[in-house]
Amino acid sequence: MEAIFSSIGLRRFLHRPAGRAPKWSKETVNQDVLNASYAVRGPVLDLAMKMEERLRSGESLPFKEMIYCNIGNPQSLQQKPLTFVRQVLSLVTNPLLLEKHSDLFPSDAVARAQKYLGAHPMGAYSNSQGIKTVREEVAAFIGKRDQTFSPDPDAIFLINGASEGVRYGLQSLLRPRLAGYHDGVLVPIPQYPLYSALTTLLNGELVPYYLREEEGWTLEVGDLEEALKQARARGVTVRGLVVINPGNPTGQLLSRANMEKIIEFCVRENLVLMADEVYQTNIYVDDRGFLSFRKVAVDMGLPPDAGPEEQGMNEKHLQLVSFHSVSKGFMGECGLRGGYMELFGIPPGVKAQLYKLASISLCSNTIGQVVTGLMVHPPEEGSPSFPTYEGERTATLTSLRRRAQKLTAGLGNLEGVSVQPSTGAMYSFPRLSLPPAFHAEAVKQGTKADELYCIRLVEATGIVVVPGSGFGQVDGSWHFRTTFLPPEDKMDSVMERLGKFHKELLDAYRG
Amino acid sequence: MEAIFSSIGLRRFLHRPAGRAPKWSKETVNQDVLNASYAVRGPVLDLAMKMEERLRSGESLPFKEMIYCNIGNPQSLQQKPLTFVRQVLSLVTNPLLLEKHSDLFPSDAVARAQKYLGAHPMGAYSNSQGIKTVREEVAAFIGKRDQTFSPDPDAIFLINGASEGVRYGLQSLLRPRLAGYHDGVLVPIPQYPLYSALTTLLNGELVPYYLREEEGWTLEVGDLEEALKQARARGVTVRGLVVINPGNPTGQLLSRANMEKIIEFCVRENLVLMADEVYQTNIYVDDRGFLSFRKVAVDMGLPPDAGPEEQGMNEKHLQLVSFHSVSKGFMGECGLRGGYMELFGIPPGVKAQLYKLASISLCSNTIGQVVTGLMVHPPEEGSPSFPTYEGERTATLTSLRRRAQKLTAGLGNLEGVSVQPSTGAMYSFPRLSLPPAFHAEAVKQGTKADELYCIRLVEATGIVVVPGSGFGQVDGSWHFRTTFLPPEDKMDSVMERLGKFHKELLDAYRG
Repeated sequence: MEAIFSSIGLRRFLHRPAGRAPKWSKETVNQDVLNASYAVRGPVLDLAMKMEERLRSGESLPFKEMIYCNIGNPQSLQQKPLTFVRQVLSLVTNPLLLEKHSDLFPSDAVARAQKYLGAHPMGAYSNSQGIKTVREEVAAFIGKRDQTFSPDPDAIFLINGASEGVRYGLQSLLRPRLAGYHDGVLVPIPQYPLYSALTTLLNGELVPYYLREEEGWTLEVGDLEEALKQARARGVTVRGLVVINPGNPTGQLLSRANMEKIIEFCVRENLVLMADEVYQTNIYVDDRGFLSFRKVAVDMGLPPDAGPEEQGMNEKHLQLVSFHSVSKGFMGECGLRGGYMELFGIPPGVKAQLYKLASISLCSNTIGQVVTGLMVHPPEEGSPSFPTYEGERTATLTSLRRRAQKLTAGLGNLEGVSVQPSTGAMYSFPRLSLPPAFHAEAVKQGTKADELYCIRLVEATGIVVVPGSGFGQVDGSWHFRTTFLPPEDKMDSVMERLGKFHKELLDAYRG
Repeated sequence: MEAIFSSIGLRRFLHRPAGRAPKWSKETVNQDVLNASYAVRGPVLDLAMKMEERLRSGESLPFKEMIYCNIGNPQSLQQKPLTFVRQVLSLVTNPLLLEKHSDLFPSDAVARAQKYLGAHPMGAYSNSQGIKTVREEVAAFIGKRDQTFSPDPDAIFLINGASEGVRYGLQSLLRPRLAGYHDGVLVPIPQYPLYSALTTLLNGELVPYYLREEEGWTLEVGDLEEALKQARARGVTVRGLVVINPGNPTGQLLSRANMEKIIEFCVRENLVLMADEVYQTNIYVDDRGFLSFRKVAVDMGLPPDAGPEEQGMNEKHLQLVSFHSVSKGFMGECGLRGGYMELFGIPPGVKAQLYKLASISLCSNTIGQVVTGLMVHPPEEGSPSFPTYEGERTATLTSLRRRAQKLTAGLGNLEGVSVQPSTGAMYSFPRLSLPPAFHAEAVKQGTKADELYCIRLVEATGIVVVPGSGFGQVDGSWHFRTTFLPPEDKMDSVMERLGKFHKELLDAYRG
């Protein structure tokens, strides 16, 4: 941009003498920050937190407690942490305990703690990519999961949850508007709002592609092609494709055939595939399991190295960044902020920039790094902790499956609600058909119909969900996202309160 | 900027149809990322890590181990964590241990763990600002430290180390160049390179002001005024002032009179004061202690609330963001990534944007949050853990002081090295006077003299320090930054190796 200004003699626009700055206020904050929105923690949650304060102060409301279904945060809803994970954490955080009282712990927990502490003291900054011992565990896990060769541990970055990795990736990929670029990234609609928030912050263009609700939120490559074509016509250089599999908020699981087409599309169009695979162990169907994009790429014969790094390096390569997290699955260790990203087909020159971004934050937290190691390297069969671990794992996953089915069935029985089955993840994204008088009310209040619905829901029941507009939806359609994480003994009561609220709302506006 | 384009009919520059994107390579990454540099982990460290690999693989080098003095990372150099801190961590990470074996722990550690777990399960996302119970501890600490009223806990953000808070602050403060702004921030030279890296990433302008080396790296308000004037003449709207106190890499401690003048300057010029106070407990002089900018502001009668939030809100207010961290002091819990930032005179509309940025990352890691609570609320006198805690604290701080003095004295004895005494922090920043032939060699190699010096040092001794150019220095002067963190029993050997290296280098180039 500066070059353009210079060439057309307008440099003076950039060089007027400046005066005293304005105070820092909502009028003078960075407007990209102002324009970014992150709906999972938006106005509905603000209202809910105020209502929680009122409950705490003893005020009488139509319900006794808030039920937070707005965010996949299992341990806030009574899911217990895995015993083995927490045993190891107590040992690595307290080396004196390990020294003096290791007899209180299973031998495999002790051995694992010794391994991590031998590799790195928890209180020290690690390598900015993460502790190598843990990266080696991640690499071994990926090879085993994908039934292929393992990646180089140097292709792994340990991060404070997947969000941080997505930020590093998008920040390095999207070139500045100021320099005359107009880079964009294809993002599913509905999407997890991290992607829209980051593209806004980074001055990039979110190029939407719509998932097909009626076909179970499937992703059609034809729709990708159309979205790409339209974006290019608008002057956008599309550089990446975000795929969330299993879907968030939609829960769908991609088939291998579909993934192959997506990969071919990315190779053909030079798009960096950003594979958000944080729900890879949350799958509630029996007929097929999770396939990583990396596995499908390897099976297609695509190489993990990038080829020569010049403009126009090997055109036949896939560039892929995959994300995983300790926050989801059956661990649900959201608060500990752990996860990894894996680079595939990404040249060293790009990796160096990702490393630099990581080093500006010094390193991700070491406890989250250790939890990532524990996620990818659980107790092995025959080891003392295996039976407990397996029991806890299975109990959580089967309970999640029962809750998913109960929620889907319950929502599907409501008048004017249609819902696709949740085959994966932790969410349902039901579609609402609401009376015209309710829409009129929303217009009158200057709000969106789905937001008004969610506000009324929290006021009447204490159940907190997120309006579909926070994730994006086809114009004129209305949804909300709810987790199915409330404890099993509360699910009936949640469904009952939701059903009663919904019926009363329809009756009130039926006219 | 778009408005300008539009008004002058050049919108077409922004709307040419785009073609296929280039691959993601070092040629096509975001150039702001490419241009950012973070010297604490630059080429000297890369070389050191390679040498460490060579040592590990059994190769014979002129030394047996690397000594990392490049970064304030005490626990990587054998500093032990505080017993009380780690006892509480083992209990909060493993609630079963708390339930069944609390008899193994001092009662105050048990009580504290129960308090934190009662407030929040560690595995759950917290409020994006952090666990309220911990923020209340931080607020109480600030009031006590400053001998004034305590801040509102809602003015506190718990963060993954101070770096994250600085990023939130600068990102919300510096407005986009693309929108026609040209915002800058005054940063000391030498500086901690986080500030230069972030301003580059955010397309802001780093406006340097030089600390006066000969006067012990003091900060003269006249120099600030001059730097501000020159920046304005260049068209930069200066919006903030970064002060690092105690200084990094320079170790100086500001006086109250100096701080008052700085505050008056910020109020007069509408600058947001960003006070990096992470070394507040690392002070090695007896005649005066640490004063926070907040305390000085409160003593001057400046109010902590922002006044009415419109353009031109109360001109007499100070806008201050202060940062603290668990990584430094006598805890040195770098790897756990904890810290806080406190808002003072910042209006709700700005706070909402900082909160949004925090919420995009969901929350800082809960273990780091708990460690922050433990830092600001140590065992109280008379409690069972107090004697051990006090003993550990005092031992670490007195040892750091001895090491600081030993390093300063040792460096000062070297030919051609001048060094200001380290009154605070963890670093020394000696100035090098090197023979002309060495400078010629650096020019020949296309590198900077200080970088070449540091590379030679690591090659000859395994001691890793950072070239002064990574922090900034007056043109033509050359420095390096070293921590004084090697264990006390190794300090003599470090000084001896450094002295021998330095003498040999001078002799070789003396000509």
